[in-house]
Amino acid sequence: MTDTKRTVKIATIGGGSSYTPELVEGFIKRYDELPVRELWLVDVPEGEEKLKIVGGLAQRMVKAAGLPMEVHLTLDRREALAGADFVTTQFRVGQLDARIKDERIALKHGLIGQETNGAAGMFKALRTIPVIFDIIRDMQELCPDAWLVNFTNPVGIVTEAVLRYTDWDKIIGLCNCPISMRFGIAKWMDVDPDRVRMELSGLNHHFFVTDVFIDGKSCFDEVLERYCELPVEELGTMKNIMAIPWSNRLIRGLHAIPVSYLNYYFSTREELKQLTADYEAHGVRAEVVKQVEAELFDLYKDAELHVKPKQLEERGGAHYSDAACSVIDSIYNDRGDIQYVDVRNRGAVSSLPEESAIECAAVITADGPKPIAIGELPVAINGTIQMIKTFERMVAEAAVTGNKDLVVAALVANKLCDSDAVANEVVDELMEAHKDYLPQFFNADGTPKDEREAKALTSKVCALA
Amino acid sequence: MTDTKRTVKIATIGGGSSYTPELVEGFIKRYDELPVRELWLVDVPEGEEKLKIVGGLAQRMVKAAGLPMEVHLTLDRREALAGADFVTTQFRVGQLDARIKDERIALKHGLIGQETNGAAGMFKALRTIPVIFDIIRDMQELCPDAWLVNFTNPVGIVTEAVLRYTDWDKIIGLCNCPISMRFGIAKWMDVDPDRVRMELSGLNHHFFVTDVFIDGKSCFDEVLERYCELPVEELGTMKNIMAIPWSNRLIRGLHAIPVSYLNYYFSTREELKQLTADYEAHGVRAEVVKQVEAELFDLYKDAELHVKPKQLEERGGAHYSDAACSVIDSIYNDRGDIQYVDVRNRGAVSSLPEESAIECAAVITADGPKPIAIGELPVAINGTIQMIKTFERMVAEAAVTGNKDLVVAALVANKLCDSDAVANEVVDELMEAHKDYLPQFFNADGTPKDEREAKALTSKVCALA
Amino acid sequence: MTDTKRTVKIATIGGGSSYTPELVEGFIKRYDELPVRELWLVDVPEGEEKLKIVGGLAQRMVKAAGLPMEVHLTLDRREALAGADFVTTQFRVGQLDARIKDERIALKHGLIGQETNGAAGMFKALRTIPVIFDIIRDMQELCPDAWLVNFTNPVGIVTEAVLRYTDWDKIIGLCNCPISMRFGIAKWMDVDPDRVRMELSGLNHHFFVTDVFIDGKSCFDEVLERYCELPVEELGTMKNIMAIPWSNRLIRGLHAIPVSYLNYYFSTREELKQLTADYEAHGVRAEVVKQVEAELFDLYKDAELHVKPKQLEERGGAHYSDAACSVIDSIYNDRGDIQYVDVRNRGAVSSLPEESAIECAAVITADGPKPIAIGELPVAINGTIQMIKTFERMVAEAAVTGNKDLVVAALVANKLCDSDAVANEVVDELMEAHKDYLPQFFNADGTPKDEREAKALTSKVCALA
Amino acid sequence: MTDTKRTVKIATIGGGSSYTPELVEGFIKRYDELPVRELWLVDVPEGEEKLKIVGGLAQRMVKAAGLPMEVHLTLDRREALAGADFVTTQFRVGQLDARIKDERIALKHGLIGQETNGAAGMFKALRTIPVIFDIIRDMQELCPDAWLVNFTNPVGIVTEAVLRYTDWDKIIGLCNCPISMRFGIAKWMDVDPDRVRMELSGLNHHFFVTDVFIDGKSCFDEVLERYCELPVEELGTMKNIMAIPWSNRLIRGLHAIPVSYLNYYFSTREELKQLTADYEAHGVRAEVVKQVEAELFDLYKDAELHVKPKQLEERGGAHYSDAACSVIDSIYNDRGDIQYVDVRNRGAVSSLPEESAIECAAVITADGPKPIAIGELPVAINGTIQMIKTFERMVAEAAVTGNKDLVVAALVANKLCDSDAVANEVVDELMEAHKDYLPQFFNADGTPKDEREAKALTSKVCALA
Repeated sequence: MTDTKRTVKIATIGGGSSYTPELVEGFIKRYDELPVRELWLVDVPEGEEKLKIVGGLAQRMVKAAGLPMEVHLTLDRREALAGADFVTTQFRVGQLDARIKDERIALKHGLIGQETNGAAGMFKALRTIPVIFDIIRDMQELCPDAWLVNFTNPVGIVTEAVLRYTDWDKIIGLCNCPISMRFGIAKWMDVDPDRVRMELSGLNHHFFVTDVFIDGKSCFDEVLERYCELPVEELGTMKNIMAIPWSNRLIRGLHAIPVSYLNYYFSTREELKQLTADYEAHGVRAEVVKQVEAELFDLYKDAELHVKPKQLEERGGAHYSDAACSVIDSIYNDRGDIQYVDVRNRGAVSSLPEESAIECAAVITADGPKPIAIGELPVAINGTIQMIKTFERMVAEAAVTGNKDLVVAALVANKLCDSDAVANEVVDELMEAHKDYLPQFFNADGTPKDEREAKALTSKVCALA
Repeated sequence: MTDTKRTVKIATIGGGSSYTPELVEGFIKRYDELPVRELWLVDVPEGEEKLKIVGGLAQRMVKAAGLPMEVHLTLDRREALAGADFVTTQFRVGQLDARIKDERIALKHGLIGQETNGAAGMFKALRTIPVIFDIIRDMQELCPDAWLVNFTNPVGIVTEAVLRYTDWDKIIGLCNCPISMRFGIAKWMDVDPDRVRMELSGLNHHFFVTDVFIDGKSCFDEVLERYCELPVEELGTMKNIMAIPWSNRLIRGLHAIPVSYLNYYFSTREELKQLTADYEAHGVRAEVVKQVEAELFDLYKDAELHVKPKQLEERGGAHYSDAACSVIDSIYNDRGDIQYVDVRNRGAVSSLPEESAIECAAVITADGPKPIAIGELPVAINGTIQMIKTFERMVAEAAVTGNKDLVVAALVANKLCDSDAVANEVVDELMEAHKDYLPQFFNADGTPKDEREAKALTSKVCALA
Repeated sequence: MTDTKRTVKIATIGGGSSYTPELVEGFIKRYDELPVRELWLVDVPEGEEKLKIVGGLAQRMVKAAGLPMEVHLTLDRREALAGADFVTTQFRVGQLDARIKDERIALKHGLIGQETNGAAGMFKALRTIPVIFDIIRDMQELCPDAWLVNFTNPVGIVTEAVLRYTDWDKIIGLCNCPISMRFGIAKWMDVDPDRVRMELSGLNHHFFVTDVFIDGKSCFDEVLERYCELPVEELGTMKNIMAIPWSNRLIRGLHAIPVSYLNYYFSTREELKQLTADYEAHGVRAEVVKQVEAELFDLYKDAELHVKPKQLEERGGAHYSDAACSVIDSIYNDRGDIQYVDVRNRGAVSSLPEESAIECAAVITADGPKPIAIGELPVAINGTIQMIKTFERMVAEAAVTGNKDLVVAALVANKLCDSDAVANEVVDELMEAHKDYLPQFFNADGTPKDEREAKALTSKVCALA
Repeated sequence: MTDTKRTVKIATIGGGSSYTPELVEGFIKRYDELPVRELWLVDVPEGEEKLKIVGGLAQRMVKAAGLPMEVHLTLDRREALAGADFVTTQFRVGQLDARIKDERIALKHGLIGQETNGAAGMFKALRTIPVIFDIIRDMQELCPDAWLVNFTNPVGIVTEAVLRYTDWDKIIGLCNCPISMRFGIAKWMDVDPDRVRMELSGLNHHFFVTDVFIDGKSCFDEVLERYCELPVEELGTMKNIMAIPWSNRLIRGLHAIPVSYLNYYFSTREELKQLTADYEAHGVRAEVVKQVEAELFDLYKDAELHVKPKQLEERGGAHYSDAACSVIDSIYNDRGDIQYVDVRNRGAVSSLPEESAIECAAVITADGPKPIAIGELPVAINGTIQMIKTFERMVAEAAVTGNKDLVVAALVANKLCDSDAVANEVVDELMEAHKDYLPQFFNADGTPKDEREAKALTSKVCALA
């Protein structure tokens, strides 16, 4: 390692997000090892007010920490990207209002409406991918050596689209689910989380823990049995993570622990019932989040506040930003430690395409994450993971080509959708609702694009892929 | 080819089935090319009466045809198998009453109850596989060079179990779906069915047509567009096959034509609604079939009848037995023609395990079917097929080991099941209902077997597989 | 099948070849089934004299047969290609003189010099591929529905280059080795060749017979033991085919029968000794062939001759043209019979890339050959086949890009080359000798091209492949 | 990590080896982190004298270091293994005299005679594998949780045999080649070796460096060009490693750096010439080594010597034992650092079987090495690696079954062998020379075993594999 470390410039797209204080806290506490000299928070005009509020808090936090870190607030993305070492993305195209539409329309038709899955997650991907591609085009010009650390959902589909349809390799997708699993397992086994490592098999929000190592030694059978033996009351925080406990037969039959998001797939009936009840009682999840965010921003405005407020941890998504800081630190310092990331498979999981995105344990080096090989997926989990990968790949292709047929077929192939006819209706309605954010599908004047062009592009894209 | 052909002995297990007349008709009309000198119809004591009725008709049919074919009726399976050249299986463990329970219990819990799919199909597999294994043990001793031609459902799971957990390679699974697809496409394209060949991708009851050749030339895009353009009223017989027409967006997005059984997966909501309505109105499908069969046997009793009655064609399952005769003929005569069968993959579909069963176009030779290579599954259909293959493999493994955890996990992994909790209930109830036919799970006195043995066997079986 | 068959136009590039009479004979004897109304024999100006001689014979043959087949002789390739149904290629870039150089230079440096293998075969590929690509460009414009039936060697590398680096799919490579193997095995087993079918595993000139079927039934162990038991004197024609008999231990250890060309790899020492002795005694093989050809053309000039002369069969390469007629007939008539061809793998051999060329048993249909799946290559033969496939792929890439580094590295990776240093010398010398025919490597004025362009093209081509 | 570390027991089979002092030095310098309390040096009666000499030195070294490490010398392997934490193997079946025969007989027939490759390496494997299997049987009984760290050559074939034909997973093969490569590259690039990491693709003694990271950042193109630009005189120690420098065209064409052992494959002609000259001048390499060892043991006898003598480093094989200590330390301390080892592929290299041994960069944890995924092998190196893997797998199978046909076929498939006929002769002669150490092939009275048994075992073993 060279003696004098180069200082670091970070550009955060969607800097006005409520998560920003966690990110800033992460950089502050790592400053000695990871000298972030410039942090550029970028947002779009619609987010300017939030950017100012959270940016102000960020500046106060840095000042209170007494560090020579400059926090810049800007609406000029290109200025922020120029010469950046790392770019993090946490934006939301169409803000929470778009998510509210996603969830309401899906639920209205009897389908799970959830930010990263099924019909709702699909449309979030369709809105997000064009913007990510724009950012990458800018990065190719303005900071070609930078890493893109993305935690804009649906992370799996976004990463798939970038790896498959651009020549930009330096992307890492991040999620807080693996960290939460690790904390849960640690609590469960009554050990410090630092002593726990996991083998993850699968995709973002759709992985299974297929091995657990305590102090480096595999003890998976004990972990599985502990889960089965613990009374529901004592599952502790695991209960929060897995809203509906898995049956012992399912866990033993899978010989794997599903990430909590798989509740939507394995307890669809119960989840749908609950989401529908909530929706009717007090609005969809996005509406709740909107209220929470408003409260957070009220806190952030307080000129006396100069630390990350505790309430942020309850927002959901805790550890997200810390995961980003941690990956950036390991790349910068070539740590070679193991973290859980979304990256190109490169053969680590032989059941999935080498060029696809997977979520896995990887060694984080200055050359990026290097996934640890795990070979073939166990039979019991292969079907579910393949189904999601088909969904991810079709949505990514549709996002790039504007092929609406793929949108419908992807949704019908997903276990969350129980009707071709309903899929057609939901897709039509969501297209109409989001037309301003779907340039692949609509002209500037709001008329649908000529579908023949989308199909021609699809066949070209298929040939490449 | 040798000049004087050896004559042929056929043993048909489940010979008392209502399908037997079609089989006999098939052998009669091929007699010049395929000289079946002995046809042994075998059944269990519970089926003796039906065996006598349908066996009597078979004997009258042969006599009317003036052929030197002996039709033997017997309850002694070993006598029938001794020296057989081909063994066909069309039995039903527990008769239609077992199927009635499968369908009623599944529907009662809000799950699709269908003979070859989901919870109901799974239990049919669990009952059938032990009997198939018994037959194979007898064949190894009594007719080691014979081919086993199986059309006992669920054909996909039965074939998988045999290929994976026995060392018997000479098994062919058969189904009438491919033939029906071919007739449908021919009607649609207004050509003679003989001019139509298909590329099938997938599994029994879960395949997609991924290419169509008329006079040997690929014309798949025209076929797809023809489907999309035809008014529903003019889809003609296709309507009967695909009870619910696929949406044009689905068909174009998949770029493949799903077999009609996939309606259960892609129109689950509508299918479930209809099955439930039928169940409440006039009983499950198995109850309808029971009535139809009773009527058929009344016809068969008629001593004046000496041809296959037309009513059999309306029974559902037409062409099943003819497919069997056709495969037997091509093996016997080393025809090298292309038929659609369930056989070991052997790399034909590179996305599926080489040792697994697939349904595909294969060249039928004296050495058995040789699948034509099609390479990787298209993305759009891969997820669905992999999900089913996971289901098939887990059910096959459970059927061999008696591991109940696998039964639950397999069901939860299936797109037809929307609840882990419900899966546990349904499995418990079906286990109890069928305990007499599930020797892997229950002792002779009806008490459940020790689960530790099942798990020990599972880990051993996994090591082999 | 339509009632009135469309008549057929054939264009034969390299029509002045001594093989042409076999081709013409093949079309004459199949005329009823395959109505070739126009046969266009094309050649380059240097071949005009031979074209006239052999073309004259062809015209006399057709006339004698009393068929309405027009035989056109032309130097205008585009005229010949316009509207062709099938294009066959049997040209030799640089004529036999180029082959003489290939063989002499290789042998001079102590390397096997053989037309389709090692250093000599490599340079034949480098000369041939640019011309084949030119032909394909013309075909795309002038006869886009035609099939290209190539038997210009090295067929394996030419087919690989076309499948990998053009978007032309309708190519079939042909060789007479499989037919010779079949005749040999038939003689050996004392049965009619028509009763013999084979499973081939591998590549053009580098395959192994891994199963043999007589009357459709596998009898491979008997065939292997028959080979081992027969005294060398009684191996009969097999001796001609396999100049050096394989040891019994090798055959049993491989559990496969290598094509005779593998003698160069498995008996390199003896082959090299013999080729060197021949070279010193009476010139390389190409010089012998040149003499034989001169004698053949003397025969062809005889205005009284109107059949294929027997001497052609002794030329080596017998059955080559008949194989072409046979494939063309099966495509035209959608026969669905099994022939042995070079085509895209498409997953038939799972150990080789899906998009690569393989030599295999395939069903020949109006949509082209459909390879029969054989799964993974047996361990014992996998190493040799993979080594050759690496060689083929590198040479194909070098032929397209003009990257000389790949030429050297390909040769060093080949088992026939025992020295990096020698490989460099041989490549330099062959480049110089053939510069007129290597536009990828040399400018029109004979100066070497800028290597940076070749490397830039290589990285682009790699990205595509 | 638990606070109080358990102390460690090591058993070293072949403890009388001249390498032992390096091993002891390695344990001494790591004692604080890796508290080896017991080191058991085991040997066979023939090695007792050497065991006493080197064991005495080991005891003096430990005493001089003032550590509470007990060094036990024993001929009772079971006593040494009981309760061991790690077992290292460095024995040589038949001592150097056997190796002398290997090398002389191969060279006499014009084949490379080299300890780990071709004919000679093959027979070393055939002698070693039965002994390794005996050790594993003892370990299963006496120390089932121990790791076997093997550096008895040929490491690749030994590891393959253990992973494929036993159910013992806890084996790591080690070699000093990767470390030497790393030192060479570091010298070349003028950086500290600690700053260099590599991506290895391939097998033991047959790998290619396919990427180089300095301070974690990939700089492979620079490394390749540096190699090409350096004058031969300045290649420095690289010259020692790669006795014959690779041509620039080869290196650029491969886009990979071959391990020096590949000189035998890529410069066979020159290597063979040199080995033959040496053999004729002063005996084969094994004879030279025998002399060097005698000198080393003279040194070791010196009762005043209590450190590893410098002369050992010149023995060849330096860093071998240090590599073993380093791996043991990382497992014991769950370090998670990257080392270069021979382990089960587990999908890391998708072009090779998942269950095969590969040599690769792996993360070393308390649960053993976890290979980092690298995906498909580049085309240019795939052929060579596959050829060797075929050789390794066939030799491993022959070693387990005693099938002599496989021995011949394996040798013929290897690029180092240029003649089927010669292979038969060499195999016969080596079999005869080593019959005392080949219980798979010979009865206790020296008569050859019945070959039918070997073949029956082979087909059984194939079914398992």
